[in-house]
Amino acid sequence: MKEFEKTKLNRIKRGANRAVYDTETINSILDAGFIAQVGYIYDGYPISIPMAYTRKDDKIYLHGSTANRMLKAILESGKTSINVMHLDGLVIARSGLHHSVNYRSVTLFGELKEIIEDSEKSKLLGDIVDQMIPNHWETLRPMHQKELDRTIVVEFTITSASAKIRAKGVNDEPEDYELPYWAGVIPVKQVLEAPIPDKGYPSTINIPQHIETHYNKFK
Amino acid sequence: MKEFEKTKLNRIKRGANRAVYDTETINSILDAGFIAQVGYIYDGYPISIPMAYTRKDDKIYLHGSTANRMLKAILESGKTSINVMHLDGLVIARSGLHHSVNYRSVTLFGELKEIIEDSEKSKLLGDIVDQMIPNHWETLRPMHQKELDRTIVVEFTITSASAKIRAKGVNDEPEDYELPYWAGVIPVKQVLEAPIPDKGYPSTINIPQHIETHYNKFK
Repeated sequence: MKEFEKTKLNRIKRGANRAVYDTETINSILDAGFIAQVGYIYDGYPISIPMAYTRKDDKIYLHGSTANRMLKAILESGKTSINVMHLDGLVIARSGLHHSVNYRSVTLFGELKEIIEDSEKSKLLGDIVDQMIPNHWETLRPMHQKELDRTIVVEFTITSASAKIRAKGVNDEPEDYELPYWAGVIPVKQVLEAPIPDKGYPSTINIPQHIETHYNKFK
Repeated sequence: MKEFEKTKLNRIKRGANRAVYDTETINSILDAGFIAQVGYIYDGYPISIPMAYTRKDDKIYLHGSTANRMLKAILESGKTSINVMHLDGLVIARSGLHHSVNYRSVTLFGELKEIIEDSEKSKLLGDIVDQMIPNHWETLRPMHQKELDRTIVVEFTITSASAKIRAKGVNDEPEDYELPYWAGVIPVKQVLEAPIPDKGYPSTINIPQHIETHYNKFK
Protein backbone atom coordinates (compact mmCIF):
# COMPACT_ATOMS: atom_id res chain seq x y z
CA MET A 1 0.00 0.00 0.00
CA LYS A 2 1.45 3.34 -1.04
CA GLU A 3 1.26 5.98 1.64
CA PHE A 4 2.07 9.67 1.79
CA GLU A 5 4.86 10.45 4.22
CA LYS A 6 3.57 12.19 7.35
CA THR A 7 5.06 15.66 7.60
CA LYS A 8 4.09 18.68 9.66
CA LEU A 9 1.98 19.80 6.68
CA ASN A 10 -0.29 16.78 6.24
CA ARG A 11 -0.16 15.11 9.65
CA ILE A 12 -3.61 15.05 11.25
CA LYS A 13 -3.46 15.96 14.92
CA ARG A 14 -7.11 16.27 15.94
CA GLY A 15 -8.86 12.93 15.62
CA ALA A 16 -5.72 11.09 14.51
CA ASN A 17 -7.68 7.82 14.71
CA ARG A 18 -9.64 9.03 11.68
CA ALA A 19 -6.53 9.82 9.65
CA VAL A 20 -5.67 8.00 6.45
CA TYR A 21 -2.58 8.48 4.31
CA ASP A 22 -2.78 5.75 1.67
CA THR A 23 -3.16 6.82 -1.94
CA GLU A 24 -5.83 4.25 -2.79
CA THR A 25 -8.27 5.60 -0.21
CA ILE A 26 -7.36 9.21 -0.98
CA ASN A 27 -7.89 8.64 -4.71
CA SER A 28 -11.23 6.95 -4.15
CA ILE A 29 -12.45 10.02 -2.24
CA LEU A 30 -11.20 12.32 -5.01
CA ASP A 31 -12.83 10.18 -7.69
CA ALA A 32 -16.20 10.26 -5.91
CA GLY A 33 -16.51 14.03 -6.45
CA PHE A 34 -15.93 16.72 -9.03
CA ILE A 35 -16.00 19.95 -6.97
CA ALA A 36 -12.99 20.83 -4.81
CA GLN A 37 -12.32 23.68 -2.44
CA VAL A 38 -9.14 25.33 -3.69
CA GLY A 39 -7.29 27.62 -1.31
CA TYR A 40 -5.35 30.76 -2.08
CA ILE A 41 -4.05 33.73 -0.17
CA TYR A 42 -5.39 37.16 -1.10
CA ASP A 43 -4.39 40.25 0.80
CA GLY A 44 -3.16 38.03 3.64
CA TYR A 45 -6.44 36.12 3.89
CA PRO A 46 -6.82 32.41 3.15
CA ILE A 47 -9.74 32.11 0.73
CA SER A 48 -11.30 28.91 -0.47
CA ILE A 49 -13.05 28.70 -3.83
CA PRO A 50 -15.18 25.80 -5.05
CA MET A 51 -13.89 24.62 -8.44
CA ALA A 52 -14.43 21.71 -10.81
CA TYR A 53 -11.55 19.26 -11.05
CA THR A 54 -10.43 15.96 -12.40
CA ARG A 55 -7.80 13.54 -11.15
CA LYS A 56 -5.37 11.54 -13.30
CA ASP A 57 -2.82 9.44 -11.38
CA ASP A 58 -1.13 11.78 -8.88
CA LYS A 59 -2.37 14.95 -10.57
CA ILE A 60 -5.38 17.19 -10.13
CA TYR A 61 -6.42 19.47 -12.98
CA LEU A 62 -8.25 22.76 -12.55
CA HIS A 63 -9.41 25.21 -15.18
CA GLY A 64 -10.72 28.71 -15.47
CA SER A 65 -10.73 31.87 -17.48
CA THR A 66 -7.34 33.31 -18.40
CA ALA A 67 -8.40 36.29 -16.26
CA ASN A 68 -8.99 34.15 -13.16
CA ARG A 69 -7.11 35.98 -10.37
CA MET A 70 -7.12 32.95 -8.16
CA LEU A 71 -5.50 30.51 -10.59
CA LYS A 72 -2.95 33.18 -11.47
CA ALA A 73 -2.21 33.76 -7.80
CA ILE A 74 -1.58 30.10 -6.99
CA LEU A 75 0.54 29.62 -10.13
CA GLU A 76 2.67 32.57 -9.08
CA SER A 77 2.98 31.76 -5.39
CA GLY A 78 2.95 27.98 -5.61
CA LYS A 79 0.88 28.11 -2.42
CA THR A 80 -2.42 26.34 -2.40
CA SER A 81 -4.13 23.33 -0.94
CA ILE A 82 -7.14 21.43 -2.14
CA ASN A 83 -9.93 19.95 -0.04
CA VAL A 84 -12.61 17.55 -1.22
CA MET A 85 -15.26 16.57 1.28
CA HIS A 86 -18.25 14.26 1.13
CA LEU A 87 -20.86 14.41 3.89
CA ASP A 88 -22.15 10.89 4.57
CA GLY A 89 -24.27 11.11 7.70
CA LEU A 90 -25.54 12.94 10.75
CA VAL A 91 -24.37 11.26 13.95
CA ILE A 92 -26.96 11.82 16.66
CA ALA A 93 -25.63 11.03 20.11
CA ARG A 94 -27.03 11.03 23.64
CA SER A 95 -24.85 13.98 24.58
CA GLY A 96 -24.16 17.17 22.67
CA LEU A 97 -20.41 16.61 22.70
CA HIS A 98 -20.62 13.34 20.79
CA HIS A 99 -22.72 14.69 17.98
CA SER A 100 -20.74 14.39 14.80
CA VAL A 101 -20.97 13.71 11.11
CA ASN A 102 -19.82 10.82 9.00
CA TYR A 103 -17.69 12.13 6.19
CA ARG A 104 -14.75 11.59 3.87
CA SER A 105 -12.43 14.56 3.57
CA VAL A 106 -9.13 14.84 1.71
CA THR A 107 -6.57 17.64 1.87
CA LEU A 108 -3.87 17.82 -0.79
CA PHE A 109 -0.65 19.78 -1.13
CA GLY A 110 1.33 19.91 -4.33
CA GLU A 111 3.21 21.63 -7.09
CA LEU A 112 1.56 23.73 -9.75
CA LYS A 113 2.20 24.35 -13.37
CA GLU A 114 0.19 25.66 -16.29
CA ILE A 115 -0.58 23.37 -19.21
CA ILE A 116 0.31 25.25 -22.38
CA GLU A 117 0.02 22.82 -25.25
CA ASP A 118 -3.38 22.98 -27.00
CA SER A 119 -4.07 19.29 -27.54
CA GLU A 120 -3.12 18.49 -23.94
CA LYS A 121 -5.31 21.35 -22.66
CA SER A 122 -8.23 20.20 -24.76
CA LYS A 123 -7.90 16.61 -23.57
CA LEU A 124 -7.79 17.73 -19.91
CA LEU A 125 -10.81 20.00 -20.28
CA GLY A 126 -12.61 16.91 -21.58
CA ASP A 127 -11.47 14.99 -18.52
CA ILE A 128 -12.87 17.73 -16.25
CA VAL A 129 -16.27 17.48 -17.98
CA ASP A 130 -16.11 13.68 -17.80
CA GLN A 131 -15.43 13.83 -14.04
CA MET A 132 -18.89 15.46 -13.78
CA ILE A 133 -20.56 13.08 -16.28
CA PRO A 134 -18.54 10.09 -17.47
CA ASN A 135 -18.13 9.59 -21.23
CA HIS A 136 -19.70 12.93 -22.00
CA TRP A 137 -16.98 14.99 -23.70
CA GLU A 138 -16.77 12.84 -26.84
CA THR A 139 -20.49 13.46 -27.51
CA LEU A 140 -20.04 17.28 -27.66
CA ARG A 141 -19.05 19.48 -30.56
CA PRO A 142 -15.26 20.00 -30.68
CA MET A 143 -13.92 23.06 -28.84
CA HIS A 144 -13.35 26.21 -30.88
CA GLN A 145 -9.79 27.53 -30.83
CA LYS A 146 -10.99 30.82 -29.28
CA GLU A 147 -12.61 28.86 -26.44
CA LEU A 148 -9.36 27.05 -25.79
CA ASP A 149 -7.40 30.32 -25.97
CA ARG A 150 -9.41 31.95 -23.21
CA THR A 151 -9.13 28.97 -20.88
CA ILE A 152 -6.30 28.22 -18.50
CA VAL A 153 -5.59 24.66 -17.33
CA VAL A 154 -3.56 24.15 -14.19
CA GLU A 155 -1.84 20.92 -13.23
CA PHE A 156 -1.43 20.22 -9.53
CA THR A 157 0.92 17.33 -8.75
CA ILE A 158 0.09 15.89 -5.36
CA THR A 159 3.20 15.81 -3.18
CA SER A 160 1.55 15.45 0.22
CA ALA A 161 -1.93 14.43 1.28
CA SER A 162 -4.08 13.13 4.06
CA ALA A 163 -7.65 12.06 4.46
CA LYS A 164 -9.92 12.10 7.44
CA ILE A 165 -12.78 9.65 7.49
CA ARG A 166 -15.56 9.00 9.96
CA ALA A 167 -17.76 6.09 8.96
CA LYS A 168 -19.30 4.57 12.05
CA GLY A 169 -22.08 4.78 14.55
CA VAL A 170 -22.53 6.76 17.73
CA ASN A 171 -19.67 6.89 20.22
CA ASP A 172 -21.21 8.06 23.50
CA GLU A 173 -19.74 8.05 27.00
CA PRO A 174 -20.19 4.53 28.49
CA GLU A 175 -22.54 5.74 31.24
CA ASP A 176 -24.76 7.58 28.76
CA TYR A 177 -25.88 4.36 27.06
CA GLU A 178 -28.31 3.96 29.96
CA LEU A 179 -30.08 7.20 29.13
CA PRO A 180 -33.53 6.87 27.56
CA TYR A 181 -32.59 9.00 24.53
CA TRP A 182 -32.79 8.04 20.90
CA ALA A 183 -29.40 7.95 19.19
CA GLY A 184 -28.31 6.84 15.78
CA VAL A 185 -27.05 7.82 12.36
CA ILE A 186 -29.03 9.50 9.61
CA PRO A 187 -27.21 8.81 6.33
CA VAL A 188 -26.77 11.77 3.99
CA LYS A 189 -26.56 11.35 0.23
CA GLN A 190 -26.17 13.67 -2.71
CA VAL A 191 -28.64 12.62 -5.39
CA LEU A 192 -29.58 13.64 -8.90
CA GLU A 193 -33.16 14.53 -9.74
CA ALA A 194 -34.98 14.11 -13.04
CA PRO A 195 -33.15 15.93 -15.87
CA ILE A 196 -34.85 19.08 -17.17
CA PRO A 197 -34.32 19.46 -20.94
CA ASP A 198 -33.23 22.87 -22.22
CA LYS A 199 -35.46 24.81 -24.59
CA GLY A 200 -35.27 24.03 -28.31
CA TYR A 201 -34.03 20.74 -29.71
CA PRO A 202 -33.57 18.84 -26.44
CA SER A 203 -37.31 18.46 -25.91
CA THR A 204 -37.45 16.23 -28.99
CA ILE A 205 -34.12 14.45 -28.45
CA ASN A 206 -33.91 11.47 -26.17
CA ILE A 207 -31.52 11.88 -23.30
CA PRO A 208 -28.26 10.14 -24.32
CA GLN A 209 -27.56 6.74 -22.84
CA HIS A 210 -24.42 7.84 -20.94
CA ILE A 211 -26.32 10.65 -19.16
CA GLU A 212 -29.22 8.30 -18.40
CA THR A 213 -26.74 5.80 -16.95
CA HIS A 214 -25.11 8.44 -14.76
CA TYR A 215 -28.49 9.74 -13.59
CA ASN A 216 -29.72 6.25 -12.75
CA LYS A 217 -26.60 5.63 -10.69
CA PHE A 218 -27.16 8.66 -8.46
CA LYS A 219 -30.91 9.30 -8.53
CA MET B 1 -32.19 45.83 1.43
CA LYS B 2 -28.98 45.76 3.42
CA GLU B 3 -25.88 45.11 1.34
CA PHE B 4 -22.23 44.54 2.14
CA GLU B 5 -19.98 47.24 0.74
CA LYS B 6 -17.95 46.02 -2.22
CA THR B 7 -14.26 46.17 -1.40
CA LYS B 8 -11.25 44.55 -3.00
CA LEU B 9 -11.69 41.66 -0.58
CA ASN B 10 -15.26 40.63 -1.37
CA ARG B 11 -15.81 42.00 -4.88
CA ILE B 12 -16.50 39.19 -7.34
CA LYS B 13 -14.62 39.68 -10.59
CA ARG B 14 -15.16 36.43 -12.47
CA GLY B 15 -18.87 36.01 -13.26
CA ALA B 16 -19.86 39.33 -11.72
CA ASN B 17 -23.38 38.78 -13.07
CA ARG B 18 -23.74 35.99 -10.51
CA ALA B 19 -22.60 38.15 -7.59
CA VAL B 20 -24.88 38.99 -4.68
CA TYR B 21 -24.06 41.22 -1.72
CA ASP B 22 -27.34 41.53 0.18
CA THR B 23 -27.47 40.13 3.69
CA GLU B 24 -30.86 38.48 3.27
CA THR B 25 -29.68 36.23 0.42
CA ILE B 26 -26.34 35.60 2.10
CA ASN B 27 -28.04 34.62 5.36
CA SER B 28 -30.48 32.29 3.58
CA ILE B 29 -27.52 30.42 2.04
CA LEU B 30 -25.80 30.20 5.42
CA ASP B 31 -28.98 28.99 7.11
CA ALA B 32 -29.45 26.22 4.53
CA GLY B 33 -26.28 24.47 5.68
CA PHE B 34 -24.36 23.52 8.78
CA ILE B 35 -20.88 22.64 7.42
CA ALA B 36 -18.55 25.47 6.38
CA GLN B 37 -15.09 25.48 4.86
CA VAL B 38 -12.94 27.54 7.23
CA GLY B 39 -9.63 28.83 5.94
CA TYR B 40 -6.39 29.30 7.77
CA ILE B 41 -2.75 29.75 6.89
CA TYR B 42 -0.30 27.10 8.04
CA ASP B 43 3.38 27.23 7.12
CA GLY B 44 2.49 29.69 4.36
CA TYR B 45 -0.20 27.46 2.86
CA PRO B 46 -3.90 28.34 2.75
CA ILE B 47 -5.75 25.34 4.18
CA SER B 48 -9.48 24.86 4.28
CA ILE B 49 -11.14 22.71 6.93
CA PRO B 50 -14.78 21.60 6.95
CA MET B 51 -16.38 22.58 10.28
CA ALA B 52 -19.85 22.69 11.80
CA TYR B 53 -21.24 26.17 12.35
CA THR B 54 -24.26 28.14 13.31
CA ARG B 55 -25.32 31.67 12.36
CA LYS B 56 -26.94 34.21 14.70
CA ASP B 57 -27.54 37.67 13.19
CA ASP B 58 -24.20 38.82 11.73
CA LYS B 59 -22.19 36.20 13.59
CA ILE B 60 -20.97 32.71 12.78
CA TYR B 61 -19.97 30.39 15.63
CA LEU B 62 -17.44 27.59 15.33
CA HIS B 63 -16.27 25.14 17.95
CA GLY B 64 -13.57 22.59 18.52
CA SER B 65 -11.25 21.05 21.01
CA THR B 66 -9.14 23.42 23.08
CA ALA B 67 -6.15 21.76 21.34
CA ASN B 68 -7.45 22.61 17.84
CA ARG B 69 -4.44 24.17 16.07
CA MET B 70 -6.60 25.69 13.41
CA LEU B 71 -8.98 27.61 15.70
CA LYS B 72 -5.99 28.78 17.73
CA ALA B 73 -4.23 29.94 14.57
CA ILE B 74 -7.14 32.01 13.31
CA LEU B 75 -7.78 33.52 16.75
CA GLU B 76 -4.14 34.59 16.91
CA SER B 77 -3.79 35.87 13.35
CA GLY B 78 -7.30 37.18 12.85
CA LYS B 79 -6.96 35.88 9.29
CA THR B 80 -9.59 33.53 8.04
CA SER B 81 -12.46 33.36 5.63
CA ILE B 82 -15.46 31.08 5.57
CA ASN B 83 -17.08 29.50 2.55
CA VAL B 84 -20.44 27.71 2.48
CA MET B 85 -21.46 26.13 -0.79
CA HIS B 86 -24.55 24.24 -1.91
CA LEU B 87 -24.45 22.32 -5.20
CA ASP B 88 -27.86 22.59 -6.88
CA GLY B 89 -27.48 21.16 -10.35
CA LEU B 90 -25.37 19.92 -13.24
CA VAL B 91 -25.67 22.20 -16.25
CA ILE B 92 -25.21 20.15 -19.40
CA ALA B 93 -24.58 22.31 -22.44
CA ARG B 94 -24.05 21.68 -26.16
CA SER B 95 -20.42 22.78 -25.88
CA GLY B 96 -17.81 21.86 -23.31
CA LEU B 97 -17.17 25.48 -22.42
CA HIS B 98 -20.72 26.14 -21.28
CA HIS B 99 -20.92 23.20 -18.95
CA SER B 100 -21.45 24.51 -15.46
CA VAL B 101 -23.14 23.85 -12.16
CA ASN B 102 -25.99 25.56 -10.43
CA TYR B 103 -24.92 26.49 -6.93
CA ARG B 104 -25.13 28.92 -4.04
CA SER B 105 -21.79 29.89 -2.56
CA VAL B 106 -21.01 32.44 0.15
CA THR B 107 -17.63 33.76 1.23
CA LEU B 108 -17.36 35.64 4.51
CA PHE B 109 -14.67 37.79 6.08
CA GLY B 110 -14.81 38.92 9.66
CA GLU B 111 -13.41 39.47 13.09
CA LEU B 112 -12.72 36.70 15.54
CA LYS B 113 -12.97 36.35 19.26
CA GLU B 114 -13.17 33.50 21.71
CA ILE B 115 -16.30 33.07 23.82
CA ILE B 116 -15.16 32.59 27.41
CA GLU B 117 -18.25 32.68 29.59
CA ASP B 118 -19.63 29.19 30.33
CA SER B 119 -23.35 29.84 29.94
CA GLU B 120 -22.80 31.66 26.66
CA LYS B 121 -20.54 28.87 25.40
CA SER B 122 -23.07 26.24 26.36
CA LYS B 123 -25.92 28.10 24.66
CA LEU B 124 -23.87 28.48 21.46
CA LEU B 125 -22.85 24.81 21.40
CA GLY B 126 -26.56 24.07 21.54
CA ASP B 127 -27.13 26.39 18.61
CA ILE B 128 -24.45 24.55 16.59
CA VAL B 129 -26.20 21.21 17.26
CA ASP B 130 -29.57 22.80 16.42
CA GLN B 131 -28.20 24.07 13.09
CA MET B 132 -27.74 20.38 12.20
CA ILE B 133 -31.09 19.25 13.64
CA PRO B 134 -33.52 21.96 14.76
CA ASN B 135 -34.87 21.80 18.33
CA HIS B 136 -32.51 18.99 19.25
CA TRP B 137 -30.26 20.40 21.99
CA GLU B 138 -33.00 20.77 24.61
CA THR B 139 -33.76 17.04 24.35
CA LEU B 140 -30.21 16.00 25.32
CA ARG B 141 -28.68 15.53 28.73
CA PRO B 142 -27.07 18.77 29.98
CA MET B 143 -23.37 19.23 29.21
CA HIS B 144 -20.88 18.21 31.86
CA GLN B 145 -18.53 20.96 33.04
CA LYS B 146 -15.49 18.96 31.88
CA GLU B 147 -17.01 18.73 28.39
CA LEU B 148 -17.47 22.49 28.32
CA ASP B 149 -13.93 23.02 29.63
CA ARG B 150 -12.32 21.12 26.79
CA THR B 151 -14.32 22.92 24.12
CA ILE B 152 -13.47 26.23 22.51
CA VAL B 153 -16.17 28.40 20.93
CA VAL B 154 -15.15 31.05 18.43
CA GLU B 155 -17.29 33.98 17.38
CA PHE B 156 -16.79 35.31 13.86
CA THR B 157 -18.47 38.66 13.23
CA ILE B 158 -19.13 39.08 9.52
CA THR B 159 -17.65 42.36 8.32
CA SER B 160 -17.56 41.64 4.58
CA ALA B 161 -19.28 39.06 2.43
CA SER B 162 -20.37 38.11 -1.02
CA ALA B 163 -22.34 35.33 -2.59
CA LYS B 164 -22.19 33.81 -6.01
CA ILE B 165 -25.29 32.12 -7.30
CA ARG B 166 -26.07 30.30 -10.51
CA ALA B 167 -29.69 29.18 -10.72
CA LYS B 168 -30.71 28.93 -14.33
CA GLY B 169 -30.69 26.77 -17.43
CA VAL B 170 -28.16 26.25 -20.16
CA ASN B 171 -26.48 29.25 -21.72
CA ASP B 172 -24.98 28.07 -25.01
CA GLU B 173 -23.58 30.06 -27.92
CA PRO B 174 -26.51 31.22 -30.11
CA GLU B 175 -25.39 29.16 -33.11
CA ASP B 176 -25.06 25.99 -31.02
CA TYR B 177 -28.80 25.83 -30.35
CA GLU B 178 -29.12 24.32 -33.83
CA LEU B 179 -26.94 21.34 -32.91
CA PRO B 180 -28.75 18.04 -32.43
CA TYR B 181 -27.36 17.52 -28.91
CA TRP B 182 -29.28 17.03 -25.71
CA ALA B 183 -28.79 19.84 -23.19
CA GLY B 184 -30.41 20.58 -19.89
CA VAL B 185 -30.06 20.72 -16.14
CA ILE B 186 -29.90 17.78 -13.76
CA PRO B 187 -30.85 19.07 -10.30
CA VAL B 188 -28.67 17.93 -7.40
CA LYS B 189 -30.03 17.56 -3.89
CA GLN B 190 -28.59 16.52 -0.56
CA VAL B 191 -31.04 14.13 1.07
CA LEU B 192 -31.37 12.23 4.33
CA GLU B 193 -31.92 8.49 4.31
CA ALA B 194 -33.76 6.34 6.85
CA PRO B 195 -32.31 6.81 10.37
CA ILE B 196 -30.31 3.85 11.71
CA PRO B 197 -30.83 3.48 15.49
CA ASP B 198 -27.74 2.98 17.65
CA LYS B 199 -27.31 -0.21 19.61
CA GLY B 200 -29.00 -0.47 23.00
CA TYR B 201 -31.98 1.60 24.06
CA PRO B 202 -32.71 3.33 20.75
CA SER B 203 -34.08 0.18 19.16
CA THR B 204 -36.97 0.28 21.62
CA ILE B 205 -37.40 4.07 21.66
CA ASN B 206 -39.43 5.81 19.01
CA ILE B 207 -37.51 8.37 17.03
CA PRO B 208 -38.35 11.78 18.56
CA GLN B 209 -40.82 13.98 16.70
CA HIS B 210 -38.34 16.79 15.98
CA ILE B 211 -35.88 14.34 14.33
CA GLU B 212 -38.71 12.72 12.38
CA THR B 213 -39.82 16.17 11.21
CA HIS B 214 -36.31 17.09 10.08
CA TYR B 215 -35.86 13.76 8.32
CA ASN B 216 -39.19 14.08 6.52
CA LYS B 217 -38.23 17.54 5.32
CA PHE B 218 -35.05 16.35 3.64
CA LYS B 219 -35.63 12.67 2.81
